[in-house]
Amino acid sequence: MNPITQLASLFAEFPGIGPRQSKRFVYFLLTRNPQYLDELSRAIADLKKSSTLCASCCRFFAKQTTTAARCTICESPVRDHSTLLVVEKDVDLENIERSGLFSGTYFVLGGRIPILEKKPLERVRGNELLDHIQKKIERQELREIVLALSLTREGEYTMEILTNMLQPLCKERRIKLSTLGRGLSTGIELEYSDSETLKNALNRRV
Amino acid sequence: MNPITQLASLFAEFPGIGPRQSKRFVYFLLTRNPQYLDELSRAIADLKKSSTLCASCCRFFAKQTTTAARCTICESPVRDHSTLLVVEKDVDLENIERSGLFSGTYFVLGGRIPILEKKPLERVRGNELLDHIQKKIERQELREIVLALSLTREGEYTMEILTNMLQPLCKERRIKLSTLGRGLSTGIELEYSDSETLKNALNRRV
Amino acid sequence: MNPITQLASLFAEFPGIGPRQSKRFVYFLLTRNPQYLDELSRAIADLKKSSTLCASCCRFFAKQTTTAARCTICESPVRDHSTLLVVEKDVDLENIERSGLFSGTYFVLGGRIPILEKKPLERVRGNELLDHIQKKIERQELREIVLALSLTREGEYTMEILTNMLQPLCKERRIKLSTLGRGLSTGIELEYSDSETLKNALNRRV
Amino acid sequence: MNPITQLASLFAEFPGIGPRQSKRFVYFLLTRNPQYLDELSRAIADLKKSSTLCASCCRFFAKQTTTAARCTICESPVRDHSTLLVVEKDVDLENIERSGLFSGTYFVLGGRIPILEKKPLERVRGNELLDHIQKKIERQELREIVLALSLTREGEYTMEILTNMLQPLCKERRIKLSTLGRGLSTGIELEYSDSETLKNALNRRV
Repeated sequence: MNPITQLASLFAEFPGIGPRQSKRFVYFLLTRNPQYLDELSRAIADLKKSSTLCASCCRFFAKQTTTAARCTICESPVRDHSTLLVVEKDVDLENIERSGLFSGTYFVLGGRIPILEKKPLERVRGNELLDHIQKKIERQELREIVLALSLTREGEYTMEILTNMLQPLCKERRIKLSTLGRGLSTGIELEYSDSETLKNALNRRV
Repeated sequence: MNPITQLASLFAEFPGIGPRQSKRFVYFLLTRNPQYLDELSRAIADLKKSSTLCASCCRFFAKQTTTAARCTICESPVRDHSTLLVVEKDVDLENIERSGLFSGTYFVLGGRIPILEKKPLERVRGNELLDHIQKKIERQELREIVLALSLTREGEYTMEILTNMLQPLCKERRIKLSTLGRGLSTGIELEYSDSETLKNALNRRV
Repeated sequence: MNPITQLASLFAEFPGIGPRQSKRFVYFLLTRNPQYLDELSRAIADLKKSSTLCASCCRFFAKQTTTAARCTICESPVRDHSTLLVVEKDVDLENIERSGLFSGTYFVLGGRIPILEKKPLERVRGNELLDHIQKKIERQELREIVLALSLTREGEYTMEILTNMLQPLCKERRIKLSTLGRGLSTGIELEYSDSETLKNALNRRV
Repeated sequence: MNPITQLASLFAEFPGIGPRQSKRFVYFLLTRNPQYLDELSRAIADLKKSSTLCASCCRFFAKQTTTAARCTICESPVRDHSTLLVVEKDVDLENIERSGLFSGTYFVLGGRIPILEKKPLERVRGNELLDHIQKKIERQELREIVLALSLTREGEYTMEILTNMLQPLCKERRIKLSTLGRGLSTGIELEYSDSETLKNALNRRV
C-alpha cells in the first residue's frame, strides 16, 4: 500500500478521527522537519517500554526506574491512603489531579458498564477493584470509597453494580461508601434543568 | 408603514427572534385561517386583563375572579408556607412546579443582578422580597429561605447580594438561609468538569 | 383554559417555536407596556385585511388601496416583465429584492414538491404558474423563465417537474427556460466540497 | 520529561488537536497492541523516505522507485496535459481526484496568500508555478489554466494576485485563464444566500 494512505489509515483508528482528518495529519507530517517526525516516531515506539500499568491503581504511569510496579501516587507517603476514589479512566484522574482538590488515592476502572451487559464486572476492572480494596483492608488503611463516575446513564448503572458488589463488605468493615455530590454544575440555569438535577439541587440544598 | 413590515418589526422585539424569523412569522400568519389570527389577536389583547402580578410572590398568574390579588400557590392551604424558594423568573418557577418536587412557596425576583450594578436591589425585586419576608415573619410562618438561582456568574453574584441583605434577619429570627445543592448535573462527565464543579462534587459527596 | 397557557399554545404553532420558547414569549409580553400589546394585537387582527395575495405573482403584499389586486412589482412600469423568476416562497423573493440584483418579475410557487408526491402540481401553485405564463405569452411579453429554487433534493425535484411541464411550451414559443448558476457559493472550500458541487464548479468554469 | 506528557505535547501540534485530545491519543495508544504501535512508529519514521514532493506539480506522492522525481499524474500518458488546475493543497487535489471528474493535471500552490502579505508570491509557491507554466509553454502543451481556489476572502485574494501575475503571459500565448464556476452549491437555500452568491447564481444562470 501507498505509505501516505497506509499512515492515514493508522491515524483513522485514533479516537474521534475520521478519514479526512487522518489524511490532514499525514500531509501535516510531510511538511514538518525530520527531527519532529523522528521524535514522534521514537516516542510512540518507546511508549510501552517507558510507561506501565500501576500494579495497584491500574493507571498508566511513566516508569522512573526499570523496577517500578506502582505509580507515584500509590507510592506517595503524603497522600491519604484511607480514601479511595474510583474513576472511569486515566483522563478523569488527571483532571482531578490538575484541580489539586483531592489528596487521597485512586483506582482506574477502565470504562463504564453498558446497560444489559451480561458479565458486568468483567467488562471493567471489577475484580481488580475488589482485590485492591481487600488488600487495603488487610493493611487496615481504608475508611472511604468514593464512586466518582460520570452522571450519565451508563455511569449511574456502573455505580449501581459496584454498590451492590461493595456494600456488604463496606458494611462489615465500617467503610463509608459514597458517591460524588449532585446538583447544579457551573453554568447551569434552572430554566433548562431536568427534573433529576432539580431533585438533587432541592434535596441537597445547604 | 407596510403592515407586513410593521408586524415583522413588532415580532423582532420578541426574545431570541431576529429580523429573518420575524418575517417568517408574518408569512406563517398570512397562510393561517382567520380564526387562528382572531384567537391570537384576542389572547394578546386580553393578556393583561386576564393575568396579573401576584401581590404576594410577584409571579404572573391568570385571574380566576376579578378581585384576586394573590395567586393559587400563595392562596393554597396545602402548600408549605414555611419554606420560601426565591427564583429568578416565572419560567424557573414553572419548571420546578412541572417537576412536582417542591411543595413550598415561591418569590419571583424578576432577574439577576449584573456585576458592578450600582443599585443592585433596585435592579431586581430586592425590596419587595424583603417586604414579603417580613410579612411572613409577622405571620410566624417562615422557617427556611432557599436562594434557587442559576449557577452562572450573575446568579452567584445575586445570591451574594441577597445573602448579605438577609443574613442578619435570618440569624435573629432563626430562619435557615440555604442555596441549592451543587455538584454533578445530569449528563456531566468528569473528564470535562471544571474545577469548581469538581470541588463541589468532592466536598458534597454522600 | 388559563390565558397564559392558551396564548403559549398559540405561539407554539409558530414555525420553529417549541413549548419552552412559546412560554417565554408570553412572559415577555406580560412585562411589556399595554401600548405594545395593543399594537401587536391590532397588527395581527388587521393582517389579512391589509395584505392580500397578488392575483398575478401570488406573493403577499400590503394593499395600498382597497381595490388593488396586483402587487407593486407586477404593476411597476419600470420592471422587466419579459423575465420571470419562479421562487419557492415570499422570503426568497424578499432576499433577492433586498440584494437589488434583479429587475424582472416573480412568481411565488408556495413551496417545494416532495419526492414521490402523487399530485405534484397541486401540492404547489403549479397550475397557477402555467396560467400566469400563458397570460404573459398572450401579452407577448415573456422571453425567459428562471427556475430559482433551492439546491436541495426537493428543490431539484421541483425543478424537474416544472421543466417537464414547461419545456414544450417554451420550445414552441421560443422562451428561454433557465436555472440559477451552480458552483462554489461564498465561503466554500474545495476540501469539503461534494462531488456534485465540484462537477458544477469544473464544468461551469469561466 | 514524562513520556506520556512528552508524546501528548507532540500530538498537540497536530492540526485541530488540543491538549485534551492529545492526551486521549496517548491513552488510546497505551491500550493498543504492540504491533499497532510498531507499525505506526515505523510508518511515521519512513514517511519522508517513502514520499517526496513531485518536481513538477509540487504534490506529495509515494515513491515507487528510488529515482522517481515526478508523480504518477504528471507522468501519465493518458492525462490531458494541456489543462492545468491550480489548487491550494494536497487534500483539495485528492478530493477532486476522488470525484473522477477531472482528467487534466494539477499544481499544488501550498496555501493561500493572506490579505496585506508583503511578499505574496513567496508566501505560496508563486514562482514555482510560473516556472512550471513556462516549461509547459516550451513543450507547447498548455491551453488552459484553472485557478481552483476556495471561495473565501483569502482564496479570492490569492486568485487576484495570480491573475495579475499570469494574465500578460496567458494573453500573449493565447492560454485561457479561468476560475471555477460560482453560484449555488449543493444544499444551499435561497432564503439564506448572501448577495454575492445570489449575484453569481443570477448572472450565471443557464
